[in-house]
Amino acid sequence: MEKKITVLPGDGIGPEVMKGALEILDGVATRFGHAFHTTVKKFGGAAIDHSGSPLPEDTLLACKQSDAVLLGAVGGPQWDGNIVRPEHGLLRLRKELNVFANLRPVQVFPGLENLSPLKSNRVKGADFIFVRELTGGIYFSQPKTRDKEGKNATDTLFYSSEEVERIVEKAFELASVRKGKVTSVDKANVLETSKMWREIVDSTAKKYPNVQVEHMLVDYAAMRLISEPSKFDVIVTENMFGDILSDEAAVIPGSLGVMPSASLSGNGPGLYEPIHGSAPDIAGKGEANPVGMILSAAMMLRHSFQLEKEAEAVERAVFETLQAGYRTRDIYSGTGYLTSTKEMVNQIHLRM
Amino acid sequence: MEKKITVLPGDGIGPEVMKGALEILDGVATRFGHAFHTTVKKFGGAAIDHSGSPLPEDTLLACKQSDAVLLGAVGGPQWDGNIVRPEHGLLRLRKELNVFANLRPVQVFPGLENLSPLKSNRVKGADFIFVRELTGGIYFSQPKTRDKEGKNATDTLFYSSEEVERIVEKAFELASVRKGKVTSVDKANVLETSKMWREIVDSTAKKYPNVQVEHMLVDYAAMRLISEPSKFDVIVTENMFGDILSDEAAVIPGSLGVMPSASLSGNGPGLYEPIHGSAPDIAGKGEANPVGMILSAAMMLRHSFQLEKEAEAVERAVFETLQAGYRTRDIYSGTGYLTSTKEMVNQIHLRM
Ligand SMILES: CC(C)[C@H](C(=O)O)[C@@H](O)C(=O)O
Ligand SMILES: CC(C)[C@H](C(=O)O)[C@@H](O)C(=O)O
Repeated sequence: MEKKITVLPGDGIGPEVMKGALEILDGVATRFGHAFHTTVKKFGGAAIDHSGSPLPEDTLLACKQSDAVLLGAVGGPQWDGNIVRPEHGLLRLRKELNVFANLRPVQVFPGLENLSPLKSNRVKGADFIFVRELTGGIYFSQPKTRDKEGKNATDTLFYSSEEVERIVEKAFELASVRKGKVTSVDKANVLETSKMWREIVDSTAKKYPNVQVEHMLVDYAAMRLISEPSKFDVIVTENMFGDILSDEAAVIPGSLGVMPSASLSGNGPGLYEPIHGSAPDIAGKGEANPVGMILSAAMMLRHSFQLEKEAEAVERAVFETLQAGYRTRDIYSGTGYLTSTKEMVNQIHLRM
Repeated sequence: MEKKITVLPGDGIGPEVMKGALEILDGVATRFGHAFHTTVKKFGGAAIDHSGSPLPEDTLLACKQSDAVLLGAVGGPQWDGNIVRPEHGLLRLRKELNVFANLRPVQVFPGLENLSPLKSNRVKGADFIFVRELTGGIYFSQPKTRDKEGKNATDTLFYSSEEVERIVEKAFELASVRKGKVTSVDKANVLETSKMWREIVDSTAKKYPNVQVEHMLVDYAAMRLISEPSKFDVIVTENMFGDILSDEAAVIPGSLGVMPSASLSGNGPGLYEPIHGSAPDIAGKGEANPVGMILSAAMMLRHSFQLEKEAEAVERAVFETLQAGYRTRDIYSGTGYLTSTKEMVNQIHLRM
């Protein structure tokens, strides 16, 4: 199989973890006989410094013309005061690629349970995935205004039923090949958009008789994620609730560095990135955890290229490396081997 | 001191826990020489059943004419399908009383650490308070619409600078008599309302040179509440973020039943309620935990009546009762004495 991948290393530790993921993809290509053609482009803070825009036109064009996009991380304190910020590039890229479905798995890795801030009996068996609406809602709806004197500010939370239908459909599809349960999170006792959301979930559910559905208010969901994380399978929710809850849940495994994400559109290229930030404090030191980026590349193999066997090979190699005790600094707690980014990538490569 | 209190027992376990709180207030009145005049009114589901409205006019009038309002709990499955729902009464009561500042302390009680879903070393020392904006934002702003065909839905998130100023001010006042730190939570990288919020926090901060301020994005705050709960003091945020984050944080102590809240206006009566729900499954069984309601009454003594000594006497009696090992079912985990609602109230009373 031949595929075109646009590579956006981004800022901070982005380039380092990206290098690791590309090495692993090389390994996949060799072992399984594929060809991945990569084009590296500037994005985020690095692009602002170079051309003034976090998403230059040639970067966007390359992304649109490829089969998938890999992204390292964006942002850093040097751009925090800017009017044009790295995150704006990310928001625009999502919108331009129309990647409306953000998938964020939450899983406690075997051997890493002790990293969780939760008691072990609580996290045991936690294995769920967020399906977050990513291109609509309060992030993008107009009007978004500040009045002339600066005295009043307004944001708008709008959803069309099409936007809700396609994301809810995605959640049911996913649940039907997982544990068969969808938890839909809303605030239907307060929001009009949530009332519509709930109706659409109920009517979609009729098409999936084997999937169990529950509605949960967002405040209650914020509690249950911590008190009973093992009760979830697929959690579907709108953009802002998804932003908050998926980050909350990301704490459960105790290791942001190992967590991947995928953002999918109907048919265009998907966008794959680890959930960790650009970690400027450790950038260039060779100690960043490449696992989140590598598992994001595995999600790309699965969701954009339908290479399930290949995705599993990468995931298995990662699990085995962790189980063998290799640990970058962020997940090292005194046992096993403290490992550099490079060595971690080598160990994963060895196990493929 | 003479004070008028409107009492809204509400639904489910509301009446049971309210009875307990009123007994404790009787004890306070006797010991400290005050007179608390109480008027009991219908509210929530009980009021819907009686008159069709969750907040009947005579209930609202009584609330407005009193010095403070005590509320048990509202809601229950029998009203879940209703168009007029118990929560609507709560939202309207908040708005009518103009209680814009919702105070929610989060504290791990000595002797109850084992109830937390978090590892003990994480929760040790956690002692912070939410200051949530309660009468504005996306809960109340117009337009809130659904188009004719039901195909599109819109909610609006509006804040005026006055609304933001008064809640931020409240947070700084509180921080200056606590640990001297305000964490302001927003989503300034996405929302116009958050940008205004951040500016107002910065300008208010200038008046409180002894209070340290930090800005935190809501997604990051959702992580930090679980990973580092002991780092917070006062957390101030808008209505919806406050709803989600304060419920998330309520899981930390592992015992919703012991947690109080206060909702304050500029000068009118405050509204005091435990954070737990109406728990219809255990209503009438005499096993509900009265501590959340009793500590809410203590907050009333402090915030509405400026009776600091009295508030502390109640809080001390509660702590001592818990330390002596008395436990209602919700916080009983095999050690200490399994205690009924009534016995719990008696034990607290004894220690005042
Ligand atoms: C950077 C920011 C705009 C973004 C978001 O809120 O969507 C981030 O938090 C995320 O979740 O990917
Ligand atoms: C019942 C509901 C409308 C309410 C809210 O969201 O404010 C509740 O969750 C709360 O936090 O008091």
